[in-house]
Amino acid sequence: MSTSINMIDVIRTKRDGGTLSDAQVRWFIDAYTSGGVADEQASALLMAVFFRGMAPGELATWTAAMIASGERLDLSKVGRPTVDKHSTGGVGDKISLPLVPLVAACGAAVPQLSGRGLGHTGGTLDKLESIAGFRVALANDEVVDQLRTLGAVICAAGDGLAPADRKLYALRDVTATVESIPLIASSIMSKKIAEGTESLVLDVKFGTGAFMADEVSARQLAETMVGIGAAHGVRTVALLTAMDVPLGRTAGNGIEVAETLDVLRGGGPSDVVELTLALAREMVALAGLDADPAVALADGSALATWRAMIGAQGGDPDAPLPEASHVQVVRAPSSGYVTQLDARGVGVAAWRLGAGRARKEDPVSPSAGVVWHATVGERVEEGQPFLELRTDDPSRVPAALEALDGAWRIGPEPVERGPLVIDRIS
Amino acid sequence: MSTSINMIDVIRTKRDGGTLSDAQVRWFIDAYTSGGVADEQASALLMAVFFRGMAPGELATWTAAMIASGERLDLSKVGRPTVDKHSTGGVGDKISLPLVPLVAACGAAVPQLSGRGLGHTGGTLDKLESIAGFRVALANDEVVDQLRTLGAVICAAGDGLAPADRKLYALRDVTATVESIPLIASSIMSKKIAEGTESLVLDVKFGTGAFMADEVSARQLAETMVGIGAAHGVRTVALLTAMDVPLGRTAGNGIEVAETLDVLRGGGPSDVVELTLALAREMVALAGLDADPAVALADGSALATWRAMIGAQGGDPDAPLPEASHVQVVRAPSSGYVTQLDARGVGVAAWRLGAGRARKEDPVSPSAGVVWHATVGERVEEGQPFLELRTDDPSRVPAALEALDGAWRIGPEPVERGPLVIDRIS
Repeated sequence: MSTSINMIDVIRTKRDGGTLSDAQVRWFIDAYTSGGVADEQASALLMAVFFRGMAPGELATWTAAMIASGERLDLSKVGRPTVDKHSTGGVGDKISLPLVPLVAACGAAVPQLSGRGLGHTGGTLDKLESIAGFRVALANDEVVDQLRTLGAVICAAGDGLAPADRKLYALRDVTATVESIPLIASSIMSKKIAEGTESLVLDVKFGTGAFMADEVSARQLAETMVGIGAAHGVRTVALLTAMDVPLGRTAGNGIEVAETLDVLRGGGPSDVVELTLALAREMVALAGLDADPAVALADGSALATWRAMIGAQGGDPDAPLPEASHVQVVRAPSSGYVTQLDARGVGVAAWRLGAGRARKEDPVSPSAGVVWHATVGERVEEGQPFLELRTDDPSRVPAALEALDGAWRIGPEPVERGPLVIDRIS
Repeated sequence: MSTSINMIDVIRTKRDGGTLSDAQVRWFIDAYTSGGVADEQASALLMAVFFRGMAPGELATWTAAMIASGERLDLSKVGRPTVDKHSTGGVGDKISLPLVPLVAACGAAVPQLSGRGLGHTGGTLDKLESIAGFRVALANDEVVDQLRTLGAVICAAGDGLAPADRKLYALRDVTATVESIPLIASSIMSKKIAEGTESLVLDVKFGTGAFMADEVSARQLAETMVGIGAAHGVRTVALLTAMDVPLGRTAGNGIEVAETLDVLRGGGPSDVVELTLALAREMVALAGLDADPAVALADGSALATWRAMIGAQGGDPDAPLPEASHVQVVRAPSSGYVTQLDARGVGVAAWRLGAGRARKEDPVSPSAGVVWHATVGERVEEGQPFLELRTDDPSRVPAALEALDGAWRIGPEPVERGPLVIDRIS
């Protein structure tokens, strides 16, 4: 079969707006992963996909081939319904941290195999590594054991999952072919399906602090991913959520863990609590459970699961979180209401303070980040601290301040912050 | 300057429909030619150009950078006005063979630096190499000497001309990015401008036997190339010509040389004579001469220049042309008029008989090809020879016959063949 498939024909077919056959798609993914197709041919195809898109069936086959390029975790021995969540990333988006133990406390198993942060949005693993001793690298049987005993695991996705995606992503990264909805959707879904979850809730964000700037693209991405999930027998729901204002009160690593603990103890910022519960309800429903996440949050069982999960992965849940040696305070220049706090500006500032990385080899600081004492719609008083820029390297402060320049506004009249969850797609 | 240019930005700019700056274009062509840009990045850019095109100024800079990647011939010592012709290729298109000596006989110097055939259209050099002893590889000073003494040279374009084009063309060939008007136009024009001609006539063909199937694309290509010529101070005119019916009565190598001799002796098929004279008149006018090509054809001076050119390049103008060992005759199944003779079918048949090559390393047969005894609009009698398939390898005949299946038709009523020259663009 594969002898009759020619890469130039494959590229030309997609270039001219055609649909690749299942055999062509499988041949390409296999041949590219094994080195049988040259990078320059693969990148030409990816650019043609950028312009022409993919038909739903074509994309399902493409994703299936990416999954088939590696192993698929077997979670059948976990003994609980499995459900995971994926966020397309946002500023201050620590939701996975309280969410995973919360849903586990409701009776599900949450196999959260995660990645690192890149650019102005943070990474879940980076945040957790601010906890002394916490291990993100787990063997597959450790993952299964921990899911069986605790229901909660947050660890690095192993190299065995969807190796085709790793190779394609590296190529997309240097050929300006990252920003393609079918390529983004298949990249995310291939890894999530390979991790073996039975159901999946997607948090697809749009706005200045998100990967997708506009609602139309975010909706298209959400629908595309839900379609791929359905084609693979994974029950999938997506929430479209706003990411113009950063989530919570903190953007960084250790400071977001501290905020997570506030939430798990029954407090924390209302937007973080609201989104955590909204996602938890979807996950619990998809898992076929009838527990109420609000109860599991209030009765301390989510916190207990968090502590057990941190402990199981070598971390000390009682260890103090790292504190930055330098804190630069920005005070409110006038009394009034916060009318704007731009997620992107805050995210870039946190990144520049050391919380994020520009290249995937870069280290991140566990203590750096931005804290805001009030968010959009809330009152501030002249001269009171409004923003804190935290870092161990004061030379980073000017660039961070520059990112915040024009990113916030205080006005005389209160404004209402828009809704967090815009739509639900299933 | 170049340190601030990033290949990912270059690709993204073009991908998103922007215009590359002159600095970006020059940086890319230089860096790619010297190995400083990876093939996978270059091919992604070429695919983006396929979809987005190039602005006129951007394309002029792109072409200039390709020319600057190599040497440019200095024809200032030739002592005659220089003018060349380029055809985008067609079936039976031997026009360069009579045209170059004809225009030289009118007083111009014609530096016809040419390429090999690929696919179903023939190559001028392949045709000439069917003449015993003819050398297509000339040093630059041989080219200049021959242009000064005879005004006529047809030889291979040396490796020193536009090396960026050679590298880019090889990449386009394997990444399905050949069929892009700005990329085709810059490839042709970079080589023609680098060969040092002061003026240029383009024969842009469209139809089943041409590279461009439709008139709209051909017109766009012609306008694009005329624009590039103007931007580089090369007086450029294009004729749009029809290529649905093969030119003349022969498609092959040696048999097209024989037809050329018929034309130079004052005979030959009327379409070949018509197109040769139309192109010659444009060339003579661009060269600022007032000779009449019809006179130079009739008085034998074009033939004398042909004989001198063949002799100067080591060929024997009196040597017999190679004859195929096998001739398969297709007879007219009924009396009537040829109502269709499809250029592509004839071209593919000649190719399959051995006249053309599939890969540039392949050899070609000097004797193989197709002869048709009548063309569209002409009368045939039942049982008389209509087509001759010539080859030294009879096993090639069935595939050639298959290419001709449905490619011709004989009907009871005469049809008028459409005009050969459709338009003139300057």
